[in-house]
Amino acid sequence: MSTDKIMAKVERWGVFEITLPGRADGNPFIDYEITGTFTGVHEQKTVNGFYDGDGSYVVRFMPSFEGSYEYKISGNFGDEASGSFVAIAAGMNNHGPLRVRGCQLEYEDGNPYFSVGTTCYAWTMQSEETQEDTLRTLAEGYFNKIRMCIFPKHYLHNLHEPASYPFEGTPCEFSGDITGNFMSLMGVQPGNDWDFTKFNPEHFRNFEKRVGELSQMGIQADVILLHPYDRWGFSTMTAEQNDRYLRYAVARLAAYRNVWWSMANEYDLLRHLTVADWERMAQVVYSHDPYNHLRGIHNCFSQYDHSRPWITHCSIQREDIYKCAELVDEYRIRYKKPVALDEIGYEGNIDQGWGNLSGQELVRRFWEATCRGGYAGHGETYLEHETLWWSHGGKLFGESQQRIKFLHDEILSHIPGSGLKSIKLSWDEVAATVDNFMPSGYYLIYYGFFRPSYRYYYFDDNVEYQVEVIDTWNMTITDAGRHQGRFKIDLPGHEYMAVRIQAVT
Amino acid sequence: MSTDKIMAKVERWGVFEITLPGRADGNPFIDYEITGTFTGVHEQKTVNGFYDGDGSYVVRFMPSFEGSYEYKISGNFGDEASGSFVAIAAGMNNHGPLRVRGCQLEYEDGNPYFSVGTTCYAWTMQSEETQEDTLRTLAEGYFNKIRMCIFPKHYLHNLHEPASYPFEGTPCEFSGDITGNFMSLMGVQPGNDWDFTKFNPEHFRNFEKRVGELSQMGIQADVILLHPYDRWGFSTMTAEQNDRYLRYAVARLAAYRNVWWSMANEYDLLRHLTVADWERMAQVVYSHDPYNHLRGIHNCFSQYDHSRPWITHCSIQREDIYKCAELVDEYRIRYKKPVALDEIGYEGNIDQGWGNLSGQELVRRFWEATCRGGYAGHGETYLEHETLWWSHGGKLFGESQQRIKFLHDEILSHIPGSGLKSIKLSWDEVAATVDNFMPSGYYLIYYGFFRPSYRYYYFDDNVEYQVEVIDTWNMTITDAGRHQGRFKIDLPGHEYMAVRIQAVT
Repeated sequence: MSTDKIMAKVERWGVFEITLPGRADGNPFIDYEITGTFTGVHEQKTVNGFYDGDGSYVVRFMPSFEGSYEYKISGNFGDEASGSFVAIAAGMNNHGPLRVRGCQLEYEDGNPYFSVGTTCYAWTMQSEETQEDTLRTLAEGYFNKIRMCIFPKHYLHNLHEPASYPFEGTPCEFSGDITGNFMSLMGVQPGNDWDFTKFNPEHFRNFEKRVGELSQMGIQADVILLHPYDRWGFSTMTAEQNDRYLRYAVARLAAYRNVWWSMANEYDLLRHLTVADWERMAQVVYSHDPYNHLRGIHNCFSQYDHSRPWITHCSIQREDIYKCAELVDEYRIRYKKPVALDEIGYEGNIDQGWGNLSGQELVRRFWEATCRGGYAGHGETYLEHETLWWSHGGKLFGESQQRIKFLHDEILSHIPGSGLKSIKLSWDEVAATVDNFMPSGYYLIYYGFFRPSYRYYYFDDNVEYQVEVIDTWNMTITDAGRHQGRFKIDLPGHEYMAVRIQAVT
Repeated sequence: MSTDKIMAKVERWGVFEITLPGRADGNPFIDYEITGTFTGVHEQKTVNGFYDGDGSYVVRFMPSFEGSYEYKISGNFGDEASGSFVAIAAGMNNHGPLRVRGCQLEYEDGNPYFSVGTTCYAWTMQSEETQEDTLRTLAEGYFNKIRMCIFPKHYLHNLHEPASYPFEGTPCEFSGDITGNFMSLMGVQPGNDWDFTKFNPEHFRNFEKRVGELSQMGIQADVILLHPYDRWGFSTMTAEQNDRYLRYAVARLAAYRNVWWSMANEYDLLRHLTVADWERMAQVVYSHDPYNHLRGIHNCFSQYDHSRPWITHCSIQREDIYKCAELVDEYRIRYKKPVALDEIGYEGNIDQGWGNLSGQELVRRFWEATCRGGYAGHGETYLEHETLWWSHGGKLFGESQQRIKFLHDEILSHIPGSGLKSIKLSWDEVAATVDNFMPSGYYLIYYGFFRPSYRYYYFDDNVEYQVEVIDTWNMTITDAGRHQGRFKIDLPGHEYMAVRIQAVT
């Protein structure tokens, strides 16, 4: 099946895409199918393609190995096709998809990944200008994961029409009284007229274009498949409609190495869906995903049972107003999986308690989560700006994002291993060490709202330690010398200090 | 038994004191006893007196009613005596001892008491100058309760000799290496030589003089009878020695209306004492106290069972680093008694996590406790000052005490009732209403670290409410107008705000 053409090339873990013409009669979204079988030295995978409108069919494939691949495109969509390509070495910032290692995440190439997330639920459905603003903001390197929905969002501060809809049809005319009680806005409104058997390719093309741009920036796309913030009826589709949608989304997106599947945001607000529904839909996703992307499901009130086999990591919204990041140790014990705290409150000043924390408090929660071996998520909700980052993306006006970048670039990226876990030192410290089986000689100790003026440490009489004092808010790292045995370190008596102690080797 | 002398007068709930000469041979502290029987129209009480040294015996009595009293002094101390006095009306700031009413405290005359406490464990054993400083500071009216020990204190930042000792004898020479590990300082040291059968009256006279001065200022003395911070051996006395000491302390102090009995501070650090020991000692105290003063016992790690009948209120040290004041609701449900959070962390910057909170965080905990119907306690531990208020008293350098006074004087003192209890309004609010059976039309809502820019409220379509916005840190109360039905209140989007809403009657 080799051809005489110049061999196509794609990076390992890149997207190899084949577009073919095919049948446009009837309803191609349900009447016809297309699959591709890709064969290399180390793998053979059959993946679903999808109808992209206008008589055009697409198959995407992500090669997991370097070397030559041959492929064969089949199905009743039209004429079969075949060909080959070469998967070349991954580029500089391409480390493959993420994999789970104990309670940590790692890239498939073995590089560590220290998740610092953010949330812009509906950013791909804002104006082109706002979307470009979002990309410019993300290019500052504050975050390496973003939670984003495929479906448009109808919610407080999010009542305008989206740039596009995922299905063919006509949206309801928005009829809520936005000055009234917000509860009166909730729920699907009358007047929607959708054909749930016909996807809107333009909507998905823009979404996956953004996913690809994120991939280029090294940012993981935590794709939220379902959510309850809806006036159009996308949250109340039938089982058949949901499953078809999930297959379509997976066919379009799975070849992007940076994709995570988040079955839902606040799954428990979709009150008509049962655990059996979620398990069925999860099966649709994982059985059609050839690449074993990360999979999670995010709660409002109570946690889904994250110990279920298909769930790769805990995607957690805090359950308590006061303690959230502080519970990472308990989640690790309970679920034995990576813990992503995807909603722990946002920096801002809106009326809702989930969106009016100070930058200090949000950064404190990041450090708490980090030193307990978890991954935290950011969001921003400042009332005085028309675009609220948490939902629209756009620009950031807060104070936390620089500190989150500092945490990632100056602290996490220098951990001698793939992650942290908590270790009990003093009762009033949050102390972390490297999450290995072997002793690491690495300690990161965080004081949060405590303000000690000094502190004694004692690890080992026979090991010399390099000590640094970290101001997590002012983003400074100060050399505090080398010490051995029991030693005293002076601290400034301010909040939000940390100490990094590393054995001199 | 009436006499021809001019009738002695004492305020109702004041201290009537009779001093008589008696036998000084042998060991009067154990060889002789003295009691007084006091008879008025409404009560007859027999109380223990005590030997005060130098052949002098004292009986103290607190009349609980106005009117004439006759008394008879008996015992083998020396010659019996009798007499009478008149209990006149209580003075302006004299409301009698405190009583329990549900989960609230009230004065015996029915006036409400909103406890805002502080802690100066060993203030009565510092230099005269420091003691006078303490009184001057307390005269500023920041607090209306103080926790204070009878026995001297040996602990971090408290290693000097006390001004006096409670027993006759010679203290050990202090031998600790204060630059070393603090744990090496703990425990009774060698070289003490005490006669536990002989009290040092001077030590007690100063203590009760201070209790009397506090009473004049309207400040409750939460008297800590036993504690573990000891190099002298006062924490390791025998059961007989402990019981004798407790009887002596009660005989001396019970007539002061502002006394509370705290059986211990951090009872569970006195590891040689069992629950049976504490129950026995509590019985010694309550069976010898004619006035039924408040009684509690304070933990380090785990709570004593505050549901035991002799315990009048929960005296709580926080059990969790992050949640403490937030647990008041749970303590109220569990114990059904007033909840005094006597240690929730202190404002300061020492190395220990219990003593390095910001003023903001301590005041936040006061408001949390208050709006849940509990009473909070203050302390201050700034390293740069030689006297640390928490232990020595002296001066205050922090920022919380003014805010605590504001909370008491401007908020608590204006509650239409004897206290607050929490009420569930929104999930992210700490809301209080009056702790009565009847609806009060009073709401105090606290936002803590949340920073809403506005908030909607809705109580009753037919009632008009007066609304005030309270900045708990900047100590301002701003009129936000009268409202009815569902209404919106603008807030500044800062931390530490509260809203007071009262039905217009």
